Amino acid sequence: MTELKITIPSAKQASYTITIGTEILASVWLQIDEQFPNQSKFIITDENLVNAGHPKKLTGDREITTFVIKPAGEISKNIKTVISIIEEMEKCALGRDTLIVALGGGTVGDIAGFAASIFKRGIPVLQIPTTTVAQADSAIGGKTGVDSTLSKNAFGAFWHPVGVYIDVGTLKTLDERQYRAGLIESVKHALIANGEYFDFLEKNLDAILSRDTDVLETMAIHNCKIKGSVVELDPLEKNQRRMLNYGHTIGHAVEQASGFELLHGESIAIGIIGAGLIEIETGLGTNDRLKRIQTIFEKIDVPTEIPENLEEKKLVKLIKHDKKAVQHWPRFVLIDKIGHIHQKNGQYALEVEREIVEKVINKLKKR
Amino acid sequence: MTELKITIPSAKQASYTITIGTEILASVWLQIDEQFPNQSKFIITDENLVNAGHPKKLTGDREITTFVIKPAGEISKNIKTVISIIEEMEKCALGRDTLIVALGGGTVGDIAGFAASIFKRGIPVLQIPTTTVAQADSAIGGKTGVDSTLSKNAFGAFWHPVGVYIDVGTLKTLDERQYRAGLIESVKHALIANGEYFDFLEKNLDAILSRDTDVLETMAIHNCKIKGSVVELDPLEKNQRRMLNYGHTIGHAVEQASGFELLHGESIAIGIIGAGLIEIETGLGTNDRLKRIQTIFEKIDVPTEIPENLEEKKLVKLIKHDKKAVQHWPRFVLIDKIGHIHQKNGQYALEVEREIVEKVINKLKKR
Repeated sequence: MTELKITIPSAKQASYTITIGTEILASVWLQIDEQFPNQSKFIITDENLVNAGHPKKLTGDREITTFVIKPAGEISKNIKTVISIIEEMEKCALGRDTLIVALGGGTVGDIAGFAASIFKRGIPVLQIPTTTVAQADSAIGGKTGVDSTLSKNAFGAFWHPVGVYIDVGTLKTLDERQYRAGLIESVKHALIANGEYFDFLEKNLDAILSRDTDVLETMAIHNCKIKGSVVELDPLEKNQRRMLNYGHTIGHAVEQASGFELLHGESIAIGIIGAGLIEIETGLGTNDRLKRIQTIFEKIDVPTEIPENLEEKKLVKLIKHDKKAVQHWPRFVLIDKIGHIHQKNGQYALEVEREIVEKVINKLKKR
Repeated sequence: MTELKITIPSAKQASYTITIGTEILASVWLQIDEQFPNQSKFIITDENLVNAGHPKKLTGDREITTFVIKPAGEISKNIKTVISIIEEMEKCALGRDTLIVALGGGTVGDIAGFAASIFKRGIPVLQIPTTTVAQADSAIGGKTGVDSTLSKNAFGAFWHPVGVYIDVGTLKTLDERQYRAGLIESVKHALIANGEYFDFLEKNLDAILSRDTDVLETMAIHNCKIKGSVVELDPLEKNQRRMLNYGHTIGHAVEQASGFELLHGESIAIGIIGAGLIEIETGLGTNDRLKRIQTIFEKIDVPTEIPENLEEKKLVKLIKHDKKAVQHWPRFVLIDKIGHIHQKNGQYALEVEREIVEKVINKLKKR
């Protein structure tokens, strides 16, 4: 018997730049061409973006092969869409020397990022997020994935973008419900990492809701700094990065149990209230703190209770399928004060007794 | 406009051990359990392996959830099989704390490795290759992937195993044609990296063909050292690793154009003769050298000419779809003597004039 040891050298440091501005979309392609002169370009976007005129604004007079995801939204975030994209790229005889440009919300970014990660064993992707949720969260950090019939992001990969362009001007065309739901990820960032940012959000909520671009740029900077610093610490979500899943364990299950009638941000709002109730049950939180969060959510006009038509059993089953599940029971991320994540023995995702979770789900139900 | 720079720290050094022996399969599971005490295990194998009794030998009395790929072979190496595997894992409520054990030939390893790379954004895979081609080549090095309707490995990822167990005893149950075809990857290793190993193969060909386990262990060690050292230099195939694609540009196209009636190794044999003809055309090779290679292939009893029923146009079209294609034309790996890869300005995959390639394909056709 012989043993050989194979050592794969560390991957090279991967770094990328996030560019934030207002009405920069029309000038971005020049920068892309400068940064990637030898790559074929392939744009992935969706119907909504086409209707809003964003792909046209991005490419100008250039003729760039574009895949338009139809219909837009979570319903298309599945492996079939990814297969269609990859077969389309093959039909265009695109090779490994291709750059995918993802223009759109979280769904577009997740689909495009995942397609890039598996096309001929991986090609670069550049993210141009155009929604509140994508600009605050999903475009940064390299998490990509699509859903199976059973759970969210059952198929996925960590695949960091080679660059991110955030044009807060694109938020102006976003429909009101999408816009508001996407703000929840910003609240989440404040809750887990920066109490002063939470104060800023509370104070500037009217300007935020009226889509004041100055305030939106400030938010984008805060969001990218928080998300970026967490991802830098733990790119593969071994520990610290799990703090970004605050509100997501219950939130993801609610989103899926609703058949995606609830938007991601709306579901996460319910999940954050759920985390707050767990914090109260476990002595980490207070009613006053939860009230403050609930008030912001009510002003943003997102739900804070589980809709009555969702089955409790189905929810618990979905929670068991959570990616963070260990031995068939998920872990929860909690905070001990606004702007500060709770840790136990250096761990950020913690076990919570099954009875407490079931009690909290019951409390969360609309009566 | 604001620019933020995000730096993803280098991945930790990934290293793994290859264990080589004869009739070690029955004792491997103890070592797996020792190395991965907290992981759920999920075996991926195929019909042929079940018929040969290998999964039973591996697990003994243990009850391990097992996915059996049906039918065995390249025909199942597609995205549908991967979807079935992942949905099966979800139905078993398996989480990220799962270890996939791939038991089988190159197809099983490629499918299982790719499934591991995308299941909930990536879980570990352990490879137990059981064929000449998988033991010499595909189980080592982290290349995984499945085919689309248009080309080989259109879907794929680099995903290094956490360990490899090579039991040359499993080769005894391999059918004669599979066994012989798989030897071509060993000849390829000798051609690109070690002239003395080529001499060894020439001298010991009778013992190899009678499946003498001592000689097979020596071969496994040579193969793993050659493959391992190349992969260590260049895990993501940016340059040096491309030398492993010797014979593969034409070989892959022949394999696919034959509708997989030709086995991988058989196709690569034709591809290596093709590379030899290109070497002669470009002044890198001699007729005598090509004759020596051809003699080994004839003794192994693999084809050295393109079957007459393959359309030349289809072949050229498939060659254009090669993953190594740059600007819609692939690059070729060539040698300048037996055991030594040809380089030009530090590059291992080189442009060859289209006319030469077409002339060589013509010469390769059975008359």
